[in-house]
Amino acid sequence: MDKQWIIDTIGQFAKIGIGEKGITRLAFSDEEQQAKEYATKLMQQAGLVVRVDAAGNVIGRLEGTAEDAKVVLTGSHLDTPPDGGRYDGVVGVVGGLAAIKELMARGPLDNHVELVVFSAEESSRFGYATIGSKAMVGLANPAMWNRAKDQDGMSLNEAAARLGFSFADLKDAIQDAEKIKAFVELHIEGGPLLERTQHSIGIVEAIAAPTRLRIVIDGQAAHSGSTPMDERQDALVSAAMIVLAVQEIALGHQHEGTVATVGIMRVFPNAMNVVPGRVELGVDIRGVNHSSVIDTLQDIKDAISTIADGQETPVSIEVLVSEKPVVLDDDLVLTVEGVCHELELSFLRMNSGAGHDTMNMARIVPAGLIFIPCHEGISHNIDEYAAPEDILNGVAVLTETLYKLAK
Amino acid sequence: MDKQWIIDTIGQFAKIGIGEKGITRLAFSDEEQQAKEYATKLMQQAGLVVRVDAAGNVIGRLEGTAEDAKVVLTGSHLDTPPDGGRYDGVVGVVGGLAAIKELMARGPLDNHVELVVFSAEESSRFGYATIGSKAMVGLANPAMWNRAKDQDGMSLNEAAARLGFSFADLKDAIQDAEKIKAFVELHIEGGPLLERTQHSIGIVEAIAAPTRLRIVIDGQAAHSGSTPMDERQDALVSAAMIVLAVQEIALGHQHEGTVATVGIMRVFPNAMNVVPGRVELGVDIRGVNHSSVIDTLQDIKDAISTIADGQETPVSIEVLVSEKPVVLDDDLVLTVEGVCHELELSFLRMNSGAGHDTMNMARIVPAGLIFIPCHEGISHNIDEYAAPEDILNGVAVLTETLYKLAK
Repeated sequence: MDKQWIIDTIGQFAKIGIGEKGITRLAFSDEEQQAKEYATKLMQQAGLVVRVDAAGNVIGRLEGTAEDAKVVLTGSHLDTPPDGGRYDGVVGVVGGLAAIKELMARGPLDNHVELVVFSAEESSRFGYATIGSKAMVGLANPAMWNRAKDQDGMSLNEAAARLGFSFADLKDAIQDAEKIKAFVELHIEGGPLLERTQHSIGIVEAIAAPTRLRIVIDGQAAHSGSTPMDERQDALVSAAMIVLAVQEIALGHQHEGTVATVGIMRVFPNAMNVVPGRVELGVDIRGVNHSSVIDTLQDIKDAISTIADGQETPVSIEVLVSEKPVVLDDDLVLTVEGVCHELELSFLRMNSGAGHDTMNMARIVPAGLIFIPCHEGISHNIDEYAAPEDILNGVAVLTETLYKLAK
Repeated sequence: MDKQWIIDTIGQFAKIGIGEKGITRLAFSDEEQQAKEYATKLMQQAGLVVRVDAAGNVIGRLEGTAEDAKVVLTGSHLDTPPDGGRYDGVVGVVGGLAAIKELMARGPLDNHVELVVFSAEESSRFGYATIGSKAMVGLANPAMWNRAKDQDGMSLNEAAARLGFSFADLKDAIQDAEKIKAFVELHIEGGPLLERTQHSIGIVEAIAAPTRLRIVIDGQAAHSGSTPMDERQDALVSAAMIVLAVQEIALGHQHEGTVATVGIMRVFPNAMNVVPGRVELGVDIRGVNHSSVIDTLQDIKDAISTIADGQETPVSIEVLVSEKPVVLDDDLVLTVEGVCHELELSFLRMNSGAGHDTMNMARIVPAGLIFIPCHEGISHNIDEYAAPEDILNGVAVLTETLYKLAK
């Protein structure tokens, strides 16, 4: 395994979309496209045959020799949130290619091995996550996606079309599950558990799915100097109460593996001398236990209703996304566990709080997700860091897992 | 008095900068300039001689006949916050011109009468209020103003220069206080007191001055799915606590005539799947009792310090503006009171929570401020409304006050 190549190549991707505060390669942006093109070049250099599907997923293929060969699929994504880090997604793409290069060096395999770079895994730009893998498993919803717009008013469909991907043909991106033996993704944990418990590898048993809300609070814009405190309908005061209610409710459900975050707040008119008349919030609720997520959602709705009434600021709640948690393949968990034993790497069976493309692949094929530690659990941030040793351990586990599946 | 002309002319100004959600004529914008040019045309049509000073203040003059004539000055502003209303500022400009036209009809006056349209009264665009009147009384701070930028990164100096006003020459805009007899402004209350107590006229005794803070909360951006609730440093949770603390502290100081508002909040990176890493707040504190404002400020600072420590999210506080409340001229209050008696209009002596150009003029000359009721106290908003009868009462009081001062 060419260890230096792995670390150097991750460094090369980190140059694409780099800014002062982090790396920005938003879904279906020029930067994401540039990263995909660089990945294409690397795959071709390695001898893979590369194709691109209607969702913009890039797939490189190593042909197997058996007559009944199936596809062993690995991969991850190259897009980032605004000011994201170097490792989220990239580790799985570069690690996947390094693994395939190692397998090629071992000689012909019975099964095909494919590396996929999924489009648009992050939801930051359009509010929808894992677009590429959804398209691949037939979960695309182009009508809904078409209504999603970025901050500049560009729709998801338009952004994809600008790069030459036709969402009208998304059905062509659907993979035949019969032809796929398994999917395995390598990814940084994006949480603090492995580092804190000093494990080299996380073997994911279940992935939490997001429920997402758009909340609009209507107050009454008024002059900040001449409106008495007790005559205001300050939308920001109600919004602050909602932020704290979401925090408190999530703390109460944390033992069930559920978290909730107000990640988005927009204040109108957002001027020093005007009592805020309207506030928009984006809330993200996640858990591996679906009934806990449902309970959390209901608690949040109840709290909002109480705040809206008490403050006389009407609040509307729109559920943008509500996905079920996904349980991953038991046999694959055991296979990865066996590899960790062989390589003498400490491992932890765990859940993933973050959604991943694996979540969608698991709906049609046996799927597995391998985590490596990342520093202080930081991700989606320039401070995101995975140690070279941990990355190489992860690639080694991925390599042997793919080998067992493909040989 | 041409009553229909007053109402129609206010309607003409309302067309400039009109959008779906209100009227937007920001400080030193093309829209403010267009409104000033329309006012210039109206002044010239009325027979006034119009000049423009280095701060962009437009001044129309009616010549007095006495050898020792002084200037009796009236006026207001034509800029608005984003999505503002029809009456804030405009009533004082149109009403001032209507009053002068009425005085002209009564024949020559001993003193000169001038109508001023002050530049940039609202702070929404650059964070500094009453720019034009500050320049006129020698309170300009072009070095500080030069650092102020709007949301598009344009500095206040650049915005003024783009319209042909040179802030390098601001000293030329300073008026000689010896030559001015008095300043009187007519304005909507922008608060609910007159309507609620059913008075036609408010006679302002003191004007609250703003203290303004920029607060930056530094948390730790993190993945919203994989970061446990109890390991977060969520800047928005701290910000929400600060919003509620400001509200609670201000409610406690309300009986002293002090109010406080969080009007601005910006969240970074403001994405659905990222725990907010940084939040910026803009806080506006106002009162007519300076020691109450100071106490409120200290209480807010103390609360922020406690929140910053408890949440492990460092907070920095920058005092952008801290102005002293202004007490207006006693004699002018009595003069206006006398006019109200003569016209048989109910009046209320009161304070102004909002800042006005009068505040600056009062530093160098005897100054008075006349309020008319506005519906539900709403201003800085498309729903801002002053009844034609109330406007005409205000213009009548202004006319007679100017007449007593100028005859």
